[in-house]
Amino acid sequence: MTKKAVVLVSGGLDSATTLAIARDSGYDCYAMSFNYGQRHQIELISAKKISTSFGVIDHKVVSLGLGDIGGSALTDDSIEVPQSTSDEVAAGIPVTYVPARNTVFLSLALGWAEVLDADAIFIGVNAVDYSGYPDCRPEYIDAFQTMANLATKRGVEGQLIKIETPLIDLSKAEIIKIGLKLGVDYSQTLSCYAPDKEGKACGLCDSCHLRQQGFEAAKVGDPTLYTSV
Amino acid sequence: MTKKAVVLVSGGLDSATTLAIARDSGYDCYAMSFNYGQRHQIELISAKKISTSFGVIDHKVVSLGLGDIGGSALTDDSIEVPQSTSDEVAAGIPVTYVPARNTVFLSLALGWAEVLDADAIFIGVNAVDYSGYPDCRPEYIDAFQTMANLATKRGVEGQLIKIETPLIDLSKAEIIKIGLKLGVDYSQTLSCYAPDKEGKACGLCDSCHLRQQGFEAAKVGDPTLYTSV
Repeated sequence: MTKKAVVLVSGGLDSATTLAIARDSGYDCYAMSFNYGQRHQIELISAKKISTSFGVIDHKVVSLGLGDIGGSALTDDSIEVPQSTSDEVAAGIPVTYVPARNTVFLSLALGWAEVLDADAIFIGVNAVDYSGYPDCRPEYIDAFQTMANLATKRGVEGQLIKIETPLIDLSKAEIIKIGLKLGVDYSQTLSCYAPDKEGKACGLCDSCHLRQQGFEAAKVGDPTLYTSV
Repeated sequence: MTKKAVVLVSGGLDSATTLAIARDSGYDCYAMSFNYGQRHQIELISAKKISTSFGVIDHKVVSLGLGDIGGSALTDDSIEVPQSTSDEVAAGIPVTYVPARNTVFLSLALGWAEVLDADAIFIGVNAVDYSGYPDCRPEYIDAFQTMANLATKRGVEGQLIKIETPLIDLSKAEIIKIGLKLGVDYSQTLSCYAPDKEGKACGLCDSCHLRQQGFEAAKVGDPTLYTSV
């Protein structure tokens, strides 16, 4: 029987590559995205395109009142998205951090994985570029795995739902190279924190800068449409 | 400064008692409930009444597309809620188990706790009566705590958000006795898995049986309105 995986697909470069890796590893893939009051819902269109490209069995977009909770520039209109003018990404935990986001997303993926009797959950967290986020670190993922083993019917019966983080130690350039090898069309993906209505990237935010640097370092063309360049 | 706690309030007997305990322990309480496609949304009315009775600072009802995921008789119309005709609660993991529910709820509480800079999250899980649910066991809660410490900004800075489970080792009768001492009006609470439209309990499901047994064992009157008796 083919193995099944729930893959968290945000619409960004990392999660698109993660989906490509999951499929390449032989999994039947079930994509999961969230409509959580993010400012730029256009990323859900990217998530759909990517999921379709990689022939997922199902793509669920779960609505989630996370915006009610506030606390992040990505969901709370009263906090401004920072635009870094240098190549340096600010140190510390960024204001774009969404409280407990990966925990919430992984938990919902865990619920779906249990219903599907899936073998794995794939998430495109990366500890290299986004070290400011506590929930992108390997020790966090390990702790989530331990908790998940105790939380689920499947775990109780001794079958794990493995949390797979294939990008965790990769640079953005390495991620892009792997994705291109596996057929990811990065023009379908959206990384920008503040895209315009047509989905064009601002070219100014931290996320755009990391993406641009990644394409430069990978020495491949950047297919992203920017408003600012 | 007064300590703050996020308290998960479902509308049931256990969570009402948990809220009473949190307030009695000196916390400013922030109640959190979920609209997750449960069949009996009338429990949210109970949650509101209970939260108001105990003077919470805020009560958030977070909408959550958990029904999309399926897999439980409590959210999936294709699975029937069992009615136990004996006093015995069926062994094993019941079909009323909602996949990863406590994990999802605790994760969202964690997000709100982080935004509020809260000191604790209170959840009314109970390992005695509901031992069929893997996510009600102390070892599960411990693992969630470890994960939460690694997941959050506050945790990274060395300040824990403590997961408090004051009911975990108590019998239903003990819970009821404590709640009555702390002023819980149990007629406001709803435990039934299949209430009618007015919020009357069926008197037949496992949850009704556990509640009835609790009031009998506590030797106090059961204020619940039942349709079947």
